[in-house]
Amino acid sequence: MAPKNAFYAQSGGVTAVINASAAGVIETARKHGDRIGKVFAGRNGITGALKEELIDTSHETDDEIRALIHTPGGAFGSCRHKLRNIDENRHEYERLIEVFRAHDIGYFFYNGGGDSQDTAFKVSQMAERMGYPLNCIGIPKTVDNDLPFTDCCPGFGSVAKYVATSTLEASLDIQSMCDTSTKVFILEVMGRHAGWIAAAGGLAGKNPGDAPHIIVFPEHPFEREAFLNKVDQCVKDHGFCVVVASEGAQYEDGRFLAEAGQKDAFGHTQLGGVAPTLANMVKQSLGHKYHWAVADYLQRSARHIASQTDVEQAYAVGEAAVNYALEGRNGIMPIIKRESSDPYRWHISEAPLNEVANQEKKMPIHYTTDEGFGITADCRAYLEPLIQGEAFPPFEKGLPKVAKLENRPVEKKLKADFKL
Amino acid sequence: MAPKNAFYAQSGGVTAVINASAAGVIETARKHGDRIGKVFAGRNGITGALKEELIDTSHETDDEIRALIHTPGGAFGSCRHKLRNIDENRHEYERLIEVFRAHDIGYFFYNGGGDSQDTAFKVSQMAERMGYPLNCIGIPKTVDNDLPFTDCCPGFGSVAKYVATSTLEASLDIQSMCDTSTKVFILEVMGRHAGWIAAAGGLAGKNPGDAPHIIVFPEHPFEREAFLNKVDQCVKDHGFCVVVASEGAQYEDGRFLAEAGQKDAFGHTQLGGVAPTLANMVKQSLGHKYHWAVADYLQRSARHIASQTDVEQAYAVGEAAVNYALEGRNGIMPIIKRESSDPYRWHISEAPLNEVANQEKKMPIHYTTDEGFGITADCRAYLEPLIQGEAFPPFEKGLPKVAKLENRPVEKKLKADFKL
Repeated sequence: MAPKNAFYAQSGGVTAVINASAAGVIETARKHGDRIGKVFAGRNGITGALKEELIDTSHETDDEIRALIHTPGGAFGSCRHKLRNIDENRHEYERLIEVFRAHDIGYFFYNGGGDSQDTAFKVSQMAERMGYPLNCIGIPKTVDNDLPFTDCCPGFGSVAKYVATSTLEASLDIQSMCDTSTKVFILEVMGRHAGWIAAAGGLAGKNPGDAPHIIVFPEHPFEREAFLNKVDQCVKDHGFCVVVASEGAQYEDGRFLAEAGQKDAFGHTQLGGVAPTLANMVKQSLGHKYHWAVADYLQRSARHIASQTDVEQAYAVGEAAVNYALEGRNGIMPIIKRESSDPYRWHISEAPLNEVANQEKKMPIHYTTDEGFGITADCRAYLEPLIQGEAFPPFEKGLPKVAKLENRPVEKKLKADFKL
Repeated sequence: MAPKNAFYAQSGGVTAVINASAAGVIETARKHGDRIGKVFAGRNGITGALKEELIDTSHETDDEIRALIHTPGGAFGSCRHKLRNIDENRHEYERLIEVFRAHDIGYFFYNGGGDSQDTAFKVSQMAERMGYPLNCIGIPKTVDNDLPFTDCCPGFGSVAKYVATSTLEASLDIQSMCDTSTKVFILEVMGRHAGWIAAAGGLAGKNPGDAPHIIVFPEHPFEREAFLNKVDQCVKDHGFCVVVASEGAQYEDGRFLAEAGQKDAFGHTQLGGVAPTLANMVKQSLGHKYHWAVADYLQRSARHIASQTDVEQAYAVGEAAVNYALEGRNGIMPIIKRESSDPYRWHISEAPLNEVANQEKKMPIHYTTDEGFGITADCRAYLEPLIQGEAFPPFEKGLPKVAKLENRPVEKKLKADFKL
């Protein structure tokens, strides 16, 4: 019997290492040409399958597929498209199976966060209902580090390394100038619902008094007075104060600081900007000279300072997904199991998609200090291994070299022009 | 006769490589122990000399001085303190000479930008007037790349490499998501008066249509309509639009965009933020989903992605400063002379401080395209060599390793407690 083809798609916010997972999938599939035919990638994620916009990765050279390991972003395009439940939205699931059948696809690999794992699970259910043989395997990915079961999420370790490194470097800058210039520096980082990324900033400081002096977590209701008092005390004690603030920082009542009334000249609310909001508080109440930075997408695409550990794990979950599929497994997701923190040892295990779907892993409360402005030794012990090792990309003419894929489309076989 | 001591100070905004210049000064001085005694560093720049707060660098090991080459920030502290002209401010200059005499200082090395070179020149004048033998040598440093005579300024190449790399990486991120998510990304970079740093973002795109699609320069009066039309056209043509905006972007009438009326809930003007200002325009007029980032201090302290060329030049000007002083030279500054761009060849030359002082090198108008949103081939040919080579620092436990100096104070010899 001819080998079945595989479908691979990237979903949700991309990371510095999601393409390393893609390389893990494609390289492993190529090793098993006897059982896996071509790997088709969805152009812009699952919507590519729905629109029958498939990319034939078999045209890419082995070298370019290897180059995916050091290429940030999503090489085949990603999307934010959540399939609703099967009863409300049966036609989309049926369409997927129709497309898979038309292209003889027997393996479904979906690389994303919680929503994506939910989708992968529903697709596996639908395939069963329709009696279509399909091995559905989820592949974990998210800088938010909020997937359950897995010890960490591929993508997070590299953001953590970027944020810790940037905090360390900027702190040295402020420290040297604080006598006559900027005294307060605020770095805003990602993490809408959890403070994992902000916590990573804490790795920059090893000893008491080291910067960052304050971390603003979404997990702790923001108290203006406590924050300002701490800032002022830091400036008194150290001459300067470095703050790492999560974009998800919020007041007791749940209002995000980023939406707390910044208005432009036209009176429109200015969305985004925890950092400028905090900086304004400092200026108005304390009068200290401040600077602020918002890393935004720079942090999740910073492949140049990716964590080697993260790159290896991202590749490993892609490789494991294919191997699970070849074992005939279905409805599972490879996960990272930590064996020990020091020395750091881990291996790949698995979790059932139906339990992964739509569960959010919160940061343990004992990972933050009681006053709520710092990380604990437990948190440090958890985070430190994840930023170990450098995985510098090759450079060409002073800039990182990235994969240049052909992304050749697969000829459509279905007449119906599907509307999303 | 016993060798004279040397005084070295860092001035103004620090960079990722100013400490490499310090290493150049100290290591070269140590090679000539027969003619240069100790190198005293000013704590927090020139104010350290005025307050007689000197650091005895002779206590630092050769290894730690070497480590300065990969340590961002200002290892001895910097300051923003401009000495006024001699007649208005004679007592400060006299105090400097008094401190130099008390500590047997015969060499004055001042590492900074235009204002600092002005100070170095005035100190050399004052020493002559007072008949105090002193070799005053300026050492160029500024991320703004606006010093005259020198082909480029140590510190700029590394910011340029950071901005070009970050623009490239973030562009791949946006591109992969633009079909269903963010369509416009705006990165704000430094450069209050000149667009050199913003121009460096242009290196991320090599072919027509590549990101960044728009660069907003301070040199070109900002026109809202032209900008928005270009953004919209980019989204139509490419599906997304990446903008690199200089913090110095301004309207025809000279108002900075960053101050164009962002107000907080209390009605206070929100300073800073060209990126959010532009993002708001896009949202209000075009409705595209946007993200924005402000690199701020991250860009000038990002030693982890420093340019090898920049590091070598920063070291070379420090080394040359000492060698000029040993030749008995006075009132000059080492500069970078470009011999050719491809292959890139350069050597150290010199410029007279009295001509360097307070001159600002503007970006040539033919470095930007006629519409004012991009860089020309000439600009690219100038910039490309400056970001060549990677100078990754050593890492320890996942983070860059930095020098840990003792910074031991020199015992004060003067009674008078000087008031700044």
